[in-house]
Amino acid sequence: MHFRLIGNALGALILFVGLAMLLPLGVSLIYAEGDAKALLISLSITTLSGLFLYGITRGSAKEIGNKDGFAIVALGWICACLFGSLPYFFSESLANFVDCYFESASGFTTTGATVIASIEKLPHGILFWRSLTHWLGGMGIILLSLAILPFLGVGGMQLYKAEVPGPVVDKLAPRVREMAKTLWKVYVGISALEAFFLLMGGMGWFDALCHTFGTMATGGFSTKSASIGSYHSIYFEIVIIFFMLAAGASFSLHYKFLKGDFSVFWRSAEFRFYLAVVLLCITLVTINLRLNLHYDLPDSLRYASFQVSSIVTTTGYTTADFGSWPPASQCLLLILMFVGGCAGSTGGSIKCLRNLLLLKQAYRELYRHIHPRAVVPIKLGGKVVSPEVMEGIWGFFLLYIFFFVVASIIMTILGLDLISAIASVAASIGNIGPGLGSVGPTSNYAHIPFVGKWVLIFCMLLGRLEIYTVIILLVPEFWRK
Amino acid sequence: MHFRLIGNALGALILFVGLAMLLPLGVSLIYAEGDAKALLISLSITTLSGLFLYGITRGSAKEIGNKDGFAIVALGWICACLFGSLPYFFSESLANFVDCYFESASGFTTTGATVIASIEKLPHGILFWRSLTHWLGGMGIILLSLAILPFLGVGGMQLYKAEVPGPVVDKLAPRVREMAKTLWKVYVGISALEAFFLLMGGMGWFDALCHTFGTMATGGFSTKSASIGSYHSIYFEIVIIFFMLAAGASFSLHYKFLKGDFSVFWRSAEFRFYLAVVLLCITLVTINLRLNLHYDLPDSLRYASFQVSSIVTTTGYTTADFGSWPPASQCLLLILMFVGGCAGSTGGSIKCLRNLLLLKQAYRELYRHIHPRAVVPIKLGGKVVSPEVMEGIWGFFLLYIFFFVVASIIMTILGLDLISAIASVAASIGNIGPGLGSVGPTSNYAHIPFVGKWVLIFCMLLGRLEIYTVIILLVPEFWRK
Repeated sequence: MHFRLIGNALGALILFVGLAMLLPLGVSLIYAEGDAKALLISLSITTLSGLFLYGITRGSAKEIGNKDGFAIVALGWICACLFGSLPYFFSESLANFVDCYFESASGFTTTGATVIASIEKLPHGILFWRSLTHWLGGMGIILLSLAILPFLGVGGMQLYKAEVPGPVVDKLAPRVREMAKTLWKVYVGISALEAFFLLMGGMGWFDALCHTFGTMATGGFSTKSASIGSYHSIYFEIVIIFFMLAAGASFSLHYKFLKGDFSVFWRSAEFRFYLAVVLLCITLVTINLRLNLHYDLPDSLRYASFQVSSIVTTTGYTTADFGSWPPASQCLLLILMFVGGCAGSTGGSIKCLRNLLLLKQAYRELYRHIHPRAVVPIKLGGKVVSPEVMEGIWGFFLLYIFFFVVASIIMTILGLDLISAIASVAASIGNIGPGLGSVGPTSNYAHIPFVGKWVLIFCMLLGRLEIYTVIILLVPEFWRK
Repeated sequence: MHFRLIGNALGALILFVGLAMLLPLGVSLIYAEGDAKALLISLSITTLSGLFLYGITRGSAKEIGNKDGFAIVALGWICACLFGSLPYFFSESLANFVDCYFESASGFTTTGATVIASIEKLPHGILFWRSLTHWLGGMGIILLSLAILPFLGVGGMQLYKAEVPGPVVDKLAPRVREMAKTLWKVYVGISALEAFFLLMGGMGWFDALCHTFGTMATGGFSTKSASIGSYHSIYFEIVIIFFMLAAGASFSLHYKFLKGDFSVFWRSAEFRFYLAVVLLCITLVTINLRLNLHYDLPDSLRYASFQVSSIVTTTGYTTADFGSWPPASQCLLLILMFVGGCAGSTGGSIKCLRNLLLLKQAYRELYRHIHPRAVVPIKLGGKVVSPEVMEGIWGFFLLYIFFFVVASIIMTILGLDLISAIASVAASIGNIGPGLGSVGPTSNYAHIPFVGKWVLIFCMLLGRLEIYTVIILLVPEFWRK
């Protein structure tokens, strides 16, 4: 462990978060709703803290090791959430510190679960910061999943080593820098495109930017209490469905596509699986809504398409109260919370890649019982997947289910009913946002008890950082020389 | 595939089921409630069908292959359930054929889910047959899990090859015969002991035998609508808790224990895990009941001990309406439905052995992220578990979850609410019996729609026969030369 180096990286990150507060500060000056002071204080504290930490840890020229990588990632997110909560705190937008941290963590982990009941009452500067935390978190996640985790070998992500776009550099620091540049361009580019389409449809620039941030990060914070449903606009819904699905696909595919490799999406086994899941679930939910609610077929298709896309990509925007949909649709959406987007996207949860490989494994074992002597490797896109990768994926899946189960028990102990407990944890660890029951789309997380909020914050970080990165810091073995 | 040989084995099995009907016939003659005729017809049809099939397929001296083994096991259970449903059908105890098959399948798979609302109204002969199907199914399962599956290599059960009690014979048929003799003695012996203790406590011989059958098979059919709760007797509860826990432990351990190896239970890593789960959950549920209901501490402990033991062993007897317990207790019981008893017991579900090894795998992956170059094999009781066994367990776990999810969706489509759908499938595939919601302990499965009953019957067989044995018959590949 190189503590100096870790401190240096964290200092740079905090400084970056502080400088990012310039944008909401600008917004608050435009709208002049009295939140500029809070943002200025937050900006100053964050920037100075970052500068200070960066300054006292300078001169660490050592190589970054695996352990340092884990520590930087986990502590980096925890620090970003902490400093990111300052604007809520100083503007007195939220009642207490845990709510501030909850909202900030929900932002940076691109979850989108909120404790705010009347979103429209908040000043524009604060709302802008709230959505911006999504967008920054999303960028962090793309970097993490494509540049860092494959090399730390987390949860089978070493599979993605070969998928890395741009020049492949062997050392961690320069590689992250190179990839950040490349992916940043793709991310900004697609975001600009979405904002353009929303503006074209007549959405104001503020709402267009905030919803773009929420979409591209598969976050789900809206500037409206009724989320996207408040617009009653089929145009906005189609634009947002398209960009949610894009944000739930791997950014390494986007990069290759933009480089001119137009068949790259179709060649990706994971993307085909992702698309198949989306289309199948839209069909099932459409039929279920048509048969059980008063919606006609076009409306059923409209609501089903939006909600399935929103949940599978782990965004969490809503156009309808799916908590009052028939049980089959609720059940499908709950299951989709465990599917998630593609690896290398901003989507969370278990992810399509892992689900696909686990299903292949299950089928392989079935085949083996018929042909006991056959050697059948698991393949993805024609290439053999190594046993180490499969073991990494199992380990990830098991820990995911394990923490889901334990956290659900804790939530029931805290007094939530069974469905709300299960859904709140599924929606937090999967970085979705709205759940079912008392944390459903028409409700929020404000009523969750104090301890429960911390449990859910932990789940958000756990899910977002692919479990291992957080858990590993809690193992005493990790801190030994 | 040797169809003649398969037919021969099925013929012998059906004949055996038919002869077993002599016992309820005797009971019906004692009570003279008009069900003797129905039992006699059922007995005649079953015995003659068995004799006929056995006769026309005689003279197959060939060796039993793996595929034959799978076919005999799956078709054997399906046939036993079919002929076992005749007494309900001819006595007109149940409204329609699907209910008869449901009750029979619930019996032979030792599930204990019932479609009968007023159990006390049924004649004694039919009730005796109902409980006897449990006991016969339980014996079948012990044989299956200790003598057959380890050699077919199903779901990691090859691990148990070394655990086989009695003389180890290499060929399937003589081995099954040898082990049947040995295990039959142990099973009958422990059953006799339980019946003795129940009789000593003052339970009538009829109820004592029926409850013994239900306990030893971890089935759960009772002769009372209020199950064990109807006795309000702490003595009966303690006896049944003890024997439920015994039936949920491996019968190969019982065999060794009876042979004089008294430390065998403590040496078994699986048994220690099983006991730890039971004690932990009893503690948690006791505290939860004490704090949230009007029970005092002894009562909380009493109800918690019974219900936790009943669910973890997949028996399903009840002494309280746990459907009205606080959410945390319900959540724990729901999770226990996925734990199950030990491998080689009559308990169903995923089983402690697999859960333990999966947790070890998850921890191993965590360790690997800290020490990327370390080679850490997974061990059980000091012995290394081979990757093939782990992959088998993986495949089993994934298919179990896969079918649980798909069946739950189907149940919600059929109109069940989310909790009832999830719990009905969990309680069927885990062979528990009572679930939560509309299939909770004070309710039954009569209201489930026609299609739903077949789905749950399929789940019972799937879970009871360790998934693969059933699924493999549905793969076209299996039937090719």
